[in-house]
This record gives sequence, structure tokens and C-alpha cells, in this order.
Amino acid sequence: MTDTSTKTSTKTPLTLLGLGAMGTALARTWLAAGHPLTVWNRTPAKAEALAAEGAVVAASPAEAVAANGLIVVCLLDHASVGSALEGLDLTGKDLVDLTTGTPADGRARSAWARERGARFLDGGIMATPSMIGAPAAGGYVFYSGSPDLFEEHRSALEVPAGARFVGSDPGHAALHDVALLSAMTGLFAGISHAYALIEGEDISPKDLAPLLTEWLGAMGFFAGAAAERLVSGDFTTGVESNLAMQVTASSTYLRTAAEQGVSPELISPYLDLMRERLAADPAAHAGEDTAGAITLLRR
Amino acid sequence: MTDTSTKTSTKTPLTLLGLGAMGTALARTWLAAGHPLTVWNRTPAKAEALAAEGAVVAASPAEAVAANGLIVVCLLDHASVGSALEGLDLTGKDLVDLTTGTPADGRARSAWARERGARFLDGGIMATPSMIGAPAAGGYVFYSGSPDLFEEHRSALEVPAGARFVGSDPGHAALHDVALLSAMTGLFAGISHAYALIEGEDISPKDLAPLLTEWLGAMGFFAGAAAERLVSGDFTTGVESNLAMQVTASSTYLRTAAEQGVSPELISPYLDLMRERLAADPAAHAGEDTAGAITLLRR
Repeated sequence: MTDTSTKTSTKTPLTLLGLGAMGTALARTWLAAGHPLTVWNRTPAKAEALAAEGAVVAASPAEAVAANGLIVVCLLDHASVGSALEGLDLTGKDLVDLTTGTPADGRARSAWARERGARFLDGGIMATPSMIGAPAAGGYVFYSGSPDLFEEHRSALEVPAGARFVGSDPGHAALHDVALLSAMTGLFAGISHAYALIEGEDISPKDLAPLLTEWLGAMGFFAGAAAERLVSGDFTTGVESNLAMQVTASSTYLRTAAEQGVSPELISPYLDLMRERLAADPAAHAGEDTAGAITLLRR
Repeated sequence: MTDTSTKTSTKTPLTLLGLGAMGTALARTWLAAGHPLTVWNRTPAKAEALAAEGAVVAASPAEAVAANGLIVVCLLDHASVGSALEGLDLTGKDLVDLTTGTPADGRARSAWARERGARFLDGGIMATPSMIGAPAAGGYVFYSGSPDLFEEHRSALEVPAGARFVGSDPGHAALHDVALLSAMTGLFAGISHAYALIEGEDISPKDLAPLLTEWLGAMGFFAGAAAERLVSGDFTTGVESNLAMQVTASSTYLRTAAEQGVSPELISPYLDLMRERLAADPAAHAGEDTAGAITLLRR
């Protein structure tokens, strides 16, 4: 009886299916934290590397699932999860699916797991593999589904990264995940357009970078401001830079892009959306905040 | 001789043409700081309000320009500046144009001013009127053109908001201005798409807002990271989430938008651009950072 074995026995044992870059990073944090871990991967080579670090390597998904009550899957896609788990006995198991998917994937897997007698939690990972096990990097995982599963296994789930429960709808982890990642693509698109504009000018991207970071950080206020307007339905009170002014200003953005030989493709859809909102009823919408345009996107 | 008049006489007198919301805000800060100020506006009513605060109201642009050596214009657009100043004697004047415009507008006005014997500085205002004269709000003005004019009148120019000189090319103030504002439209587009995704779900925009703000703040690292890659030309070293992975992930964003009944119009151009970069040479570009896609925008 060593201290190590005593300590290990107090940590929830779990099974992990899927040892891609993310799965491997997750596995290492659980092993390092002393959780008994059983792993399975479609190609065995990746599992063997983890065996040297203390993981038990299962020969099949069935063997891996039978080994523990808490089963975490991190596979390529929704279909891979279905084929790995199909036909297995999941009665009484706690299934946590960290595989990237849509809200409908999460809801479908939840119903599927419930039919097989398992509790279910879907997860959306807001981190790259290098951010796993590195709390200072700020990565975290959205979870939704069974609140009981989340509370019971919270300490194990918090080992790789922060854990944020966003409700019992099993689609909401993926919805939060995709909402943030989609917003990020807008941010990246805007930054990309800015750099294209200065190409060939005597302006270093490295000099523009801190200006962009500072400005976009300040303009992040829009997330909070738009939320207030969407909840209240009031798009006009206290607006300083209104839709009519924004639409007028947008012609300068487009003329500048044309002067610089840059395609406006990354910014024009939003400018078009503002114009569409204004044109729909100029008297009603001219004085609005641009958040009013959000209401047009459900088409 | 009162203290006030002695104090006032040490501050550079100047003329301001244009008293829209921004011009009026500028005028008030110079008056409050003790700068003798002559103003002109096409419709006189707005000037009269400032007369009560100490401004001298000129009856014409010619009278306003004759009154001082430092002339600031903040009019509707480039053409308005031309028509207000056409035919006036600008010999020896210092002309500062804060009117919104493109880089070509700034360069054209600079050449025009030089032909008429004036020094010229173009400005791009990164602030709303309420941020003028409120240093804590963080607003500032990009200036480019005559470095001598900038240095000589820097203290007066810094009265309304911070002043950042970005070089002697008179087009570069507008280019910086439009680059940042264009990047902002991308940010706003991304946030708008995120809110559209959760519409009708049991998720309050007010709960998503802090998550968006935090995430987009963290993802602002892309501005600096992309600059490094554009300068070095190396889009592959140390890439963790590469182009091939991003393109794969983007199908989840599009499927989620479809499930939620949201048009992908605000995010699809960037996803298409990534796909185009990858398809152009999969072997060469799969391992790249997404910054490589920026090089496609000069079309």
C-alpha cells in the first residue's frame, strides 16, 4: 500500500474513446491527475503511447465501455460515435460526448443514449489541444444534458479544462460552441479584410496589429449592447451612430476597398444587411442601432 | 485685462468649418480649453448656439478661413470640402481635414491644398461625438500628411481626443480609419450571426453576451498572429488548428445555421475563402494557419 495507490483509488475511473490530438490531450490530463483511465482508439498505435503513461488499453469499444461507468467519447463526428457504440450495453452508464457536432446531433445522441438506459451529457470544447490541462490558457468545455451527471462527475470533467453547464437541453452545448466559433469567423474575416487593405502600402501589419486589437477589444461592447436591444426589443433609444449613418459610412468602406484593389466579399454581406434593414422601412429604422439587422437573419 | 484673457491668448486660435454632431462636439472642447475659435456652418442656426459659448461666427467660409492660420474642416464628404473652400486664398494656411473619406480623397485633398500654398493633414476620427472631450472613452484621431503641421499644432489637435500620427502619406489616416472600421463590421457580423442562432431557444442573449465578449477578446490574438505570418510569409510553422481542420469544422457551423433556420450569409464568405485557399493546393495549404487566406483578397 503506497500513498500513490491510496490516492488514485479516490479518483473516478473513466473510459475514453477516441485518441486524436484532442482525445490524447484529454487522456494525459486525467492520467496525470490520478484518474484510472481505460482508452480505446480505432487505430491502436495511439493507445499504446498512453499505456506507458498508465492507461489501460481496451481491445474493443465493448471492452472499454464495460470497464467503467463514466464513458467519454471524443471521435471524428456524430456518425463515428454511433458506429463505435452501436449494439453495446449502455445500461446505467454515464455517456459524455465531446465529439464536435450540431445541436441536433446532441439531441439525437441524447435520445439514443436514453433509449439504451444511459444518462447523457453533450460537450462543446472551447480550446485547442494545447490548452487542455493548461488552466491559464482559459480553455473550457460547454456541457448540456443531464444535470445529475454533470454534478456527479464535475470534478473529473474539470480536470482537462473549465466546465460550464449551459442547461438540460442536450443541444445547447453545441449551440453555444457553434455560436462562439461562428462569431469568431466574423472577427477573423474583419481582421483579414483590414490586412488586405494595407497590402502593398508602407504600413507594416505588425504596426496595424495592436491598433486592431485595441479597437476590436473596445468594439466588443456590441455583444452586450446588442443583447440588451434584442431582449428589450428597443433598437432606437440612446443610439448615437444610427443605421442611416452607418449605411452612409459603409460607402466609404466599399470605395476604399475598390481603391486598394480588395474584394469586399468579407464585409459586404453585413453592409448589405444593414442596407436591407434600412430600406425595409426607412422612417422606422433610420434611427436604430445596427443590432436591428439581426432580426433579418432568420430567413 | 483679466486672467482669462491672458490665459486665452496662449492657446492657438483656429477655425472650424462644419458643425454637424461631430463638428459641434469638437468646437465645444476647443472653446472649453480656451482656444479662440471661429466657426462656420452652411446652415447658421448651429453656429449661433456656439456663439453663446464664445465662438466667433463667420458669415462665409472666406471670412472663417481669413480669421486664422489653422483651419479644421469636418463636413459631410469630400465634395462638400471642395465646394466650401473653392476659390479661397489658402496661402500659408494649415488645413486639417477631419471629413470622412477614402485614402484617395485624402491624397487628392493634400495635392489640392499644396497647389494653393497650404500645408495639409488628413484625419480619421475613431470616436463618436460623445467620446470627444472625454479622454476616458478612449477615442482618438488618426492623422497623416504634413509632419510639421502635426507637430506644430499637436497640442491643439489633442484637445478633442487622442492624436496618432501614422505617416506622411496623406492617404494613410483614412486607410487606418477604414481598416479598423471594416474589421469592426466583421466583428459585428459574427456577433449578429451568433444571436440569430439562439433566437427562439431558451437562451437569453444577456447570458450569451459575456461568453461572446470573453471569447472574442481571447480570439483577438489573431490580429497579432496574422501580422506575424503576413510579415514572415510563413503560414505553417507552429499551426495547431490548421486550414484543413478549420474547413472541416466549418461544415458544422453551416449545418447548425441550417438547423436553426439562420441564413449563413454573414459567415459563409469567410468559410468559402478558407475552402478556396485549401482547394488551390491542398498539399501546400492544408497545414496553414487561416491567415493564408488573406492573400486571396486582392482580386
